[in-house]
Amino acid sequence: MSKKSEHILITGAGGFIGQALVSALLQSDSSTNITMTDVSVPPIPSQVENYKSQITATAIDLTNSEDANKLLAGKFDVYYLLHGIMSSGSEANLELGYRVNLDSHRFILDYLREHQQGAKVVFPSSLAVFGPVSRQDEVVSETTMPFPQSSYGTQKFMIECLINDYSRRGLVDGRSVRLPTVIVRPGKPTAAASSFASGIVRESLAGVRNTLPVRSDLDMWVGSPDIVVQNLVLVKNIPKERFGIHRTVCLPGQTVSVQQILEALERVGGKEKRNLVIEERDPVIEKIVESWPSRLDTNRAFTLGMHKDISLTEIVQNFAERHVK
Amino acid sequence: MSKKSEHILITGAGGFIGQALVSALLQSDSSTNITMTDVSVPPIPSQVENYKSQITATAIDLTNSEDANKLLAGKFDVYYLLHGIMSSGSEANLELGYRVNLDSHRFILDYLREHQQGAKVVFPSSLAVFGPVSRQDEVVSETTMPFPQSSYGTQKFMIECLINDYSRRGLVDGRSVRLPTVIVRPGKPTAAASSFASGIVRESLAGVRNTLPVRSDLDMWVGSPDIVVQNLVLVKNIPKERFGIHRTVCLPGQTVSVQQILEALERVGGKEKRNLVIEERDPVIEKIVESWPSRLDTNRAFTLGMHKDISLTEIVQNFAERHVK
Repeated sequence: MSKKSEHILITGAGGFIGQALVSALLQSDSSTNITMTDVSVPPIPSQVENYKSQITATAIDLTNSEDANKLLAGKFDVYYLLHGIMSSGSEANLELGYRVNLDSHRFILDYLREHQQGAKVVFPSSLAVFGPVSRQDEVVSETTMPFPQSSYGTQKFMIECLINDYSRRGLVDGRSVRLPTVIVRPGKPTAAASSFASGIVRESLAGVRNTLPVRSDLDMWVGSPDIVVQNLVLVKNIPKERFGIHRTVCLPGQTVSVQQILEALERVGGKEKRNLVIEERDPVIEKIVESWPSRLDTNRAFTLGMHKDISLTEIVQNFAERHVK
Repeated sequence: MSKKSEHILITGAGGFIGQALVSALLQSDSSTNITMTDVSVPPIPSQVENYKSQITATAIDLTNSEDANKLLAGKFDVYYLLHGIMSSGSEANLELGYRVNLDSHRFILDYLREHQQGAKVVFPSSLAVFGPVSRQDEVVSETTMPFPQSSYGTQKFMIECLINDYSRRGLVDGRSVRLPTVIVRPGKPTAAASSFASGIVRESLAGVRNTLPVRSDLDMWVGSPDIVVQNLVLVKNIPKERFGIHRTVCLPGQTVSVQQILEALERVGGKEKRNLVIEERDPVIEKIVESWPSRLDTNRAFTLGMHKDISLTEIVQNFAERHVK
């Protein structure tokens, strides 16, 4: 018996994770059809050029309900809701953050419960839901009460709650996954407080001097793009009964000190690259990063069959192979 | 120096708690002006007949944004948002529950952050935010992650999150208080699973045979109307700085077994009244009540200066004095 190919929607598909997810979904099942949307037409990743006929890429503003309705009428098998305003943006523009990160997601969930009851939804949440830890070695998990200290974290957490309620009632079949700080991100440095965690590898390997704004013995909870994306693919196939009384899962990742990232950089790029990182502590950034949990208990994810992260050296190696000429 | 009298808005003021709150606010400060609203004109409690000139009672549908705007333009000193659809209603009518318990509250909070930044808001949340406990002796508090198993609990919890975020940003000055199961409620039995907890006292004292649907050694987390309402008055006066990184407080209450309620009934009403309670176990209700947390750590409330509950005998005695002819 042949399985019917899935048609998958990815919103926010122009972003780093969205692009990687397109490739990973096709790698996992080459018959998959994918509709990619973003505020401007998202590029089709070069790795999946051969599957162009299965991919549709369109620009759509999901805060426009008429456009959203038109898109959703396509009746997809899985909805990956990757669109959103990032943390610094949500903090800078309250209305925009709530409109995109809360209202547009609620709109989609309401559309689905009305027109496609039980639709499968994958929602990327974040480490940012957690409030400050009292000690750097505090271990958090899905059973830790989050006290988000950002509007971004609040919005993500509120949608987790809504997905739990709608899933409990069988109105949608939601899965919320809390992403670690993903390293190594390609591209330019960003305004995010965590930007340096990718930057110290990316800029250094590119031969560019760069700044480390925190002390090197600081711990962080990070995850490789490869495993985060593999787990995003995997989560859609977990039987819904296995989630129990809620649908939130902290994705696997790893606790690393900044020093360990620097060591991995040196192993892959040599001392010369390592020396391009200049320590110049910024107490504001250091305080933010210190307040993030760096130790997560991800047993729930493993019980659900999710993959363990690869080593830090492999992470840096993979980045070097793909993004450094 | 004379303090300016406060003008306080109470929505949902026709309910049991709203009515008691009007009296308690005037008892705490007789110069207070109060605007009471509900979907139909709420009655002015007979105990405060003398203060009629300070009280306005109007009917308003807060899901109608034009009417809500007109009401809120009154610029109150404190907003008690007591309106809502109860748990069974929110479970039976999803749209209505979200419209009233989530959207109308968000509308008010958004109005306030735009037109009266920093306005003081008191929001009654509930024990219903908590999910099922794994053991009856599990202790929960504000740091316990809630996994609400009802849309009502979800909606209450989502507004707690929004109030935390808006308060963190100084947009409103919110205080969310999680109420225990309030006993003894006057009036008729309701469809709530907890209805019997008031019913076994109220009906028996009125000489009416009534049913106890759960085993008598079951524990519950209850609170007296007197102390719940006194703490609702008190919470508006706590300096906002004292709340720390979030604005949620579990109100004081007490763990009592159903047997202890029956004993208090017998102490106040005699054996004859006690014998009007017929044990007739209903496994559905028993299962629901068993899943509720019955032990709360309310140290945060006490640290903020809140009152400890009175004894169960006093609770039953007070009810008998006020409501039994």
